[in-house]
Amino acid sequence: MAGEAGGRHRVLVVGGGFGGLQVAKNLRHAPVDVTLVDSRNFHLFQPLTYQVATGALSPSDVTYPLRAMFGSAPNVRVLLAEVTGFDLAARKILLAHSAGSDAPESLEYDTLVVAAGSSYSYFGHDEWREVAGEVKSLESAISVRSQVLLAFERAELARGAGERRAEMTFVVVGAGPTGVEIAGQLAELARGTLQASFQAIDPGEARILLVETADRILGSFPESLSRKASTSLRMLGVTPTLNRTVVGIDRDGVSLQAADQSTERIAARTVIWAAGVRASPLAQKLGQQCGAHVDKAGRVTVGSDLTLPSHPEVIALGDMVSVSDEHGTPQSLPGVAPVAIQQGHYAARLIIRRLQGRPDRRFRYVNKGNLATIGRGRAVADLGVIRLSGLPAWLIWLVVHIFCLIGFQNRLVVMLRWSISFLSSGRVQGSRIITGRFEEPEDPRRAQSSASTKR
Amino acid sequence: MAGEAGGRHRVLVVGGGFGGLQVAKNLRHAPVDVTLVDSRNFHLFQPLTYQVATGALSPSDVTYPLRAMFGSAPNVRVLLAEVTGFDLAARKILLAHSAGSDAPESLEYDTLVVAAGSSYSYFGHDEWREVAGEVKSLESAISVRSQVLLAFERAELARGAGERRAEMTFVVVGAGPTGVEIAGQLAELARGTLQASFQAIDPGEARILLVETADRILGSFPESLSRKASTSLRMLGVTPTLNRTVVGIDRDGVSLQAADQSTERIAARTVIWAAGVRASPLAQKLGQQCGAHVDKAGRVTVGSDLTLPSHPEVIALGDMVSVSDEHGTPQSLPGVAPVAIQQGHYAARLIIRRLQGRPDRRFRYVNKGNLATIGRGRAVADLGVIRLSGLPAWLIWLVVHIFCLIGFQNRLVVMLRWSISFLSSGRVQGSRIITGRFEEPEDPRRAQSSASTKR
Repeated sequence: MAGEAGGRHRVLVVGGGFGGLQVAKNLRHAPVDVTLVDSRNFHLFQPLTYQVATGALSPSDVTYPLRAMFGSAPNVRVLLAEVTGFDLAARKILLAHSAGSDAPESLEYDTLVVAAGSSYSYFGHDEWREVAGEVKSLESAISVRSQVLLAFERAELARGAGERRAEMTFVVVGAGPTGVEIAGQLAELARGTLQASFQAIDPGEARILLVETADRILGSFPESLSRKASTSLRMLGVTPTLNRTVVGIDRDGVSLQAADQSTERIAARTVIWAAGVRASPLAQKLGQQCGAHVDKAGRVTVGSDLTLPSHPEVIALGDMVSVSDEHGTPQSLPGVAPVAIQQGHYAARLIIRRLQGRPDRRFRYVNKGNLATIGRGRAVADLGVIRLSGLPAWLIWLVVHIFCLIGFQNRLVVMLRWSISFLSSGRVQGSRIITGRFEEPEDPRRAQSSASTKR
Repeated sequence: MAGEAGGRHRVLVVGGGFGGLQVAKNLRHAPVDVTLVDSRNFHLFQPLTYQVATGALSPSDVTYPLRAMFGSAPNVRVLLAEVTGFDLAARKILLAHSAGSDAPESLEYDTLVVAAGSSYSYFGHDEWREVAGEVKSLESAISVRSQVLLAFERAELARGAGERRAEMTFVVVGAGPTGVEIAGQLAELARGTLQASFQAIDPGEARILLVETADRILGSFPESLSRKASTSLRMLGVTPTLNRTVVGIDRDGVSLQAADQSTERIAARTVIWAAGVRASPLAQKLGQQCGAHVDKAGRVTVGSDLTLPSHPEVIALGDMVSVSDEHGTPQSLPGVAPVAIQQGHYAARLIIRRLQGRPDRRFRYVNKGNLATIGRGRAVADLGVIRLSGLPAWLIWLVVHIFCLIGFQNRLVVMLRWSISFLSSGRVQGSRIITGRFEEPEDPRRAQSSASTKR
């Protein structure tokens, strides 16, 4: 595999999440020219984005400018653009540009790495997206923060008990790690931080329901840890609502269906979606161009070396792919940061080995353990043979997250905020701000909170 | 002045800025019931809001939740609502509410304090507001941050030299303290923080023009300090452009008129407005109801005890008023935090003294000095007899701002960020994030940056 005439081998990386970032970082000293394309100018530390939604952390604590990471790397170029598609035959990616701009509309590559991630799937009910909040993108988390804080403000102003109860009911859909984390933090917000902040209402009376179709929370963890997490959640004031499937979400609440097909209606102004995910539409586009299989979750199937069939120069990784094992069967790897990071490591090494003419090894995921935090001092950790819960698990969670957070300043600020919050039992919390005046419904991302205010 | 039958004296404070906040704080232990009404759930520390616009500070560093300030004060109630008008005869304020909400639409008071502040005035050219950025509200500062960072991103992508130059030209209109501060910080951003972050452009080549109608910057300071500030600005790379009046602002740049009526056109994609201010429309509404004089800047004239004519129970203060001196002539006090804070102190004492049946004194502003910062280690301080510039002035500025910042956590985080920035000569800066995808023009506050991207 040779570089283009008269230049170095050009590696184009699409996506500045955990996977793409790792590829670009590991190629900083390699004899290649790297271009990292993202539609945002920052890396988002997704495992902590949910803490923005409750005001525990500020948006800039969990983000880091991509340019600041590669300032000292002369062979890495950062480009702010939206990738709309691929021309694999011509070895080009297509960029979205606005009319009249004189910026380039496509970019050539010798090796392409696509790591475009995923977004939440509403299982065919895209109308729910308009109502439910999410904690996946930074903006969605900021919007949830406003939505949650406004619910308490509206409850304070409400004159009817029914209205007040609906404002103070929070439904979290999906009891995976994200659902558990956001439900736990909502409980701490209501029963700790906001305690004694209101006159007409007692925020501690807020109802937080964690709705799950399965018969236990944290389905990817051992049953003993699910039980412990469930107990911790109940102690915090979260009500796990199991064996219930969401069959309706609107501005007035949710409809849940039990196994016996009976349905139940819950009046709630705030619904947070943390259920299934769907791969970036770019996965589908890659699949179409090279004939690779695309599964129900929209993920393109890549070979055991993460490359596309008949396109060894195209690597795809992270949430948007499923990886074939040695028998060609797609494996389902969890959509977590360690998978993307290990795949990013692998992809960078693959590119370097190929340039050196050395043979490829296949990608193998090493699961170092699963962590889920529930609240201050409460977490569960499944480290294979060792299973921890409570404070020891939480301390591991804390260290891992501080350590992995990018940026010296971010680490210090997050440690400071968490220390203050821990020492004050959560009573001190400075990022509890509602941005975007609630009179302005023009922004579709805020339409949900505006609309419920206007009702 | 008696409270309503069967209850304590009710004080209604409109506005959670420096003035209103001071009134509510000083009445925490007084035998009155205080309701603080604001359309936002946070106090904004306006003197540092401009640092959000360049990514030096994060939005939550300069804000503090109003409820968190009064959690321990049982006689202070915080209410999130928009005040639309007054019925002074019935002693009521009118609140904006959306159809169907069951929240109250008016609130009664025994004493009313209105401290609703001001916004920028475009001298009759409201179309300029659509194009120019501001650093007054939190959202406007966040929008400027995106706009400035996007200008460099677009310059990096631009293929024509003219286009690149226009993207890298920043025009700040108005050379008062805010204009000087934002221009200085833009220069530090371009020549420090962003240095070595781009490949196609050199951010250090950015042009930053500080346009001023008068013949010197910082007109409210002694001439010697203006000269020193001007030298400091030039050393940072800002071009003070004096004796020029802005006669046009559009998406392609600004038109400036000189004293000899000749006009000059400057191609610039980013224009930041820091010129005249106009009082909140609530000042006009108060004036209409009680027959008080409203000046050209929309400020209502209050008596020397800050009350409205024939309405001793209504106090107005801060940016939205001009205060009569002993001869009945309206004095022009500067629109700065110390004025509002001193007036807030006075108003709270007035309310307490009246309840005790003690006579009123008149309000007197004590000017403790003027400060303006230009950049790291550079500031000017006019302390009456003592005039300082450079590092000593900057250290005073630093201490005063850290000390006045509300919230223990905010002080620590801001100190940490400034220390890191100082020690790294501004190269480390973590809040350089562009929020709100630039493809979405629906939000009017972001329309400016979106529109210029789309061109």
